[in-house]
Amino acid sequence: MTNPKAPPGLSETNDALLLTPGPLTTSKSVKEAMVHDWGSRDAAFLKINREVLDWLPEIVGASGDYVTVPMQGSGTFAVEAMLTTLVPPAGKCLVLINGAYGLRAKRILDIARRASVVYQTTEDTPPDLSEIDRILGADTTITHVFAVQCETTSGILNPIVEIGAVVRKHGRCLLVDAMSSFGALALDAKAVGVDAVAASSNKCLEGVPGLGFVICHREALAKTAGNATTLVLDLHDQQQNFTRTGQYRFTPPIHVIAAFHQALLEFRAEGGQPGRGRRYAENAEVLIAGMRMLGFKPLLPDRLQSPIIATFHMPTEQAFVFQAFYDKLKTRGYVIYPGKLTVADSFRIGCIGRLTAGHMRGALANIAEVLAEMGVKNLEAAA
Amino acid sequence: MTNPKAPPGLSETNDALLLTPGPLTTSKSVKEAMVHDWGSRDAAFLKINREVLDWLPEIVGASGDYVTVPMQGSGTFAVEAMLTTLVPPAGKCLVLINGAYGLRAKRILDIARRASVVYQTTEDTPPDLSEIDRILGADTTITHVFAVQCETTSGILNPIVEIGAVVRKHGRCLLVDAMSSFGALALDAKAVGVDAVAASSNKCLEGVPGLGFVICHREALAKTAGNATTLVLDLHDQQQNFTRTGQYRFTPPIHVIAAFHQALLEFRAEGGQPGRGRRYAENAEVLIAGMRMLGFKPLLPDRLQSPIIATFHMPTEQAFVFQAFYDKLKTRGYVIYPGKLTVADSFRIGCIGRLTAGHMRGALANIAEVLAEMGVKNLEAAA
Repeated sequence: MTNPKAPPGLSETNDALLLTPGPLTTSKSVKEAMVHDWGSRDAAFLKINREVLDWLPEIVGASGDYVTVPMQGSGTFAVEAMLTTLVPPAGKCLVLINGAYGLRAKRILDIARRASVVYQTTEDTPPDLSEIDRILGADTTITHVFAVQCETTSGILNPIVEIGAVVRKHGRCLLVDAMSSFGALALDAKAVGVDAVAASSNKCLEGVPGLGFVICHREALAKTAGNATTLVLDLHDQQQNFTRTGQYRFTPPIHVIAAFHQALLEFRAEGGQPGRGRRYAENAEVLIAGMRMLGFKPLLPDRLQSPIIATFHMPTEQAFVFQAFYDKLKTRGYVIYPGKLTVADSFRIGCIGRLTAGHMRGALANIAEVLAEMGVKNLEAAA
Repeated sequence: MTNPKAPPGLSETNDALLLTPGPLTTSKSVKEAMVHDWGSRDAAFLKINREVLDWLPEIVGASGDYVTVPMQGSGTFAVEAMLTTLVPPAGKCLVLINGAYGLRAKRILDIARRASVVYQTTEDTPPDLSEIDRILGADTTITHVFAVQCETTSGILNPIVEIGAVVRKHGRCLLVDAMSSFGALALDAKAVGVDAVAASSNKCLEGVPGLGFVICHREALAKTAGNATTLVLDLHDQQQNFTRTGQYRFTPPIHVIAAFHQALLEFRAEGGQPGRGRRYAENAEVLIAGMRMLGFKPLLPDRLQSPIIATFHMPTEQAFVFQAFYDKLKTRGYVIYPGKLTVADSFRIGCIGRLTAGHMRGALANIAEVLAEMGVKNLEAAA
């Protein structure tokens, strides 16, 4: 462990590199944007905020017909705000589930006493479009469909364009959780026919955590007065306030928003979604190819693999102890995700944040050395 | 306006000084603590977070019997979490109102479909203790009482110790909004008999905005399973998760928490609540005395005036135009609060944040010059 040959993971601010689905490594300039104070009702901050809100819909082809409603808190705050504002008390939501975030949406609807039905597949299986078609055809009381574009649980890509087509065919509303894909994977809100899409400052847009947002179709949002089950998560009420005053109803996380503004400048400088997506795709390619070379087996087939996070089967060789693997990598400056999946004994490595293919190669070199240190010689992954 | 004799307002990071009730001016070192990244499930961050949660109850004499449950978002997120987690569906809450924050609590309870009754006084009048006693005696179905320690609306101090005594006498639960007083004004949670008290990172503790928290009596919190009307604002569920894993349920605002940790170190170095309270009291004294000298009239009598924010009657002299006054002060680096009160045509100046009596004297010198610039010669405040 002393004097490793492989390069240590170090960010621009000398922190360990976060190879997780978030919080993730951000640029130094994004963080330095927070070393100021602003009044939340003062023009200087309101301009920063307005640019953030205006720039976000452009990323998913949603300018004009859509409006961004920000929500203090994590991404789940935005998802709960979206579900409880958009699905009316008399509505009914079909929840497509193949991971933790679909399950969480179902739980949110249950707590809010919104009727829902579930179509669940395993964590490595996208929903069958004909089954969605059948469910919507059979139950005309379903008003909304909730789908996750990229399930961070496994990194699986769900066919959001095709899901949108089925939902449109049946004339229902589509609510999308694009938390871990927004800004990296293409999403054309108008073409897909999205009514609302939720994401956050802290995934592929590479801001710091603390702000979620929901990009809502203006017509869909206009119908939601009085739907919300809380004061703070009421997107309609927040939007009314922006229209009246340009201000947040409740103190915004000013510094987080200033960092987000800088992060969006850097996102645009990188070429927006295509540019950001290209870098992440290269990160994922380098990582997965390298992990295969070391004997690890990805959970997902390539066609379902997003460039956001990759899941690998846990090696069965006795010398491979995951906690030691995690700790040794962390000591070397690479923090991977400690979570496990239910569908298979597995672990995850994220490809997003201020990371390049060079960082991924550094991670791989360290993984190789850690395996050697642990005495893992004949790596054989569980099937 | 060019070459002013009075010193310009400049923070340690060359920003305008925020003389508002928050967001407020924070120290450079607090903001610089954010120029790093951490994994939200990693030991380094969890230690920072644990210290923050452990230090907070000490400030209100609540160690041991109480536990801090943090809540992403603004202070209102914490207040809504407190009300909707602590007041059960079959409960009934007496809301003491003499400003915007009491009104907001009532609105939260209405949306959550919690029964409530209101005892409202004007913005410059604290509640009458004998009336609280009468209401609780007459209505034994009231389970909880909600009170605001310092109403930021006017800066009025409510008699929280005496309110606590009445609530205890009747055996009801006391929920306190200490948003703008926590850390500056004394509050002994055990002696007052508080069941829960809500505050945020961004007022007198001088962190940046983005995290609220509720310090809950352990026994009171233990009874709240299933009460909450949302997933994200469920304090019981969050606390269960801390007990199980030490982690947040949903991505915490890491950088905001790192800044809060640094702010609490600086708070402790200043002598905790007594030290912080002394500085603010001096700020308020200097400000109010100086404003009186200039001819402004405070809204509140001294005995009701908190050292958090001071409200002044709007001068009636025609040459005094508030927007010009605000703008000119802002150009000189002093941002005051632009809001108005309903009880009287008035404006507010905050005394909290990284400000000293010297800064208040600077503000006064600039106010004097701005009055001269505006041609205000015979300042006569409205009664």
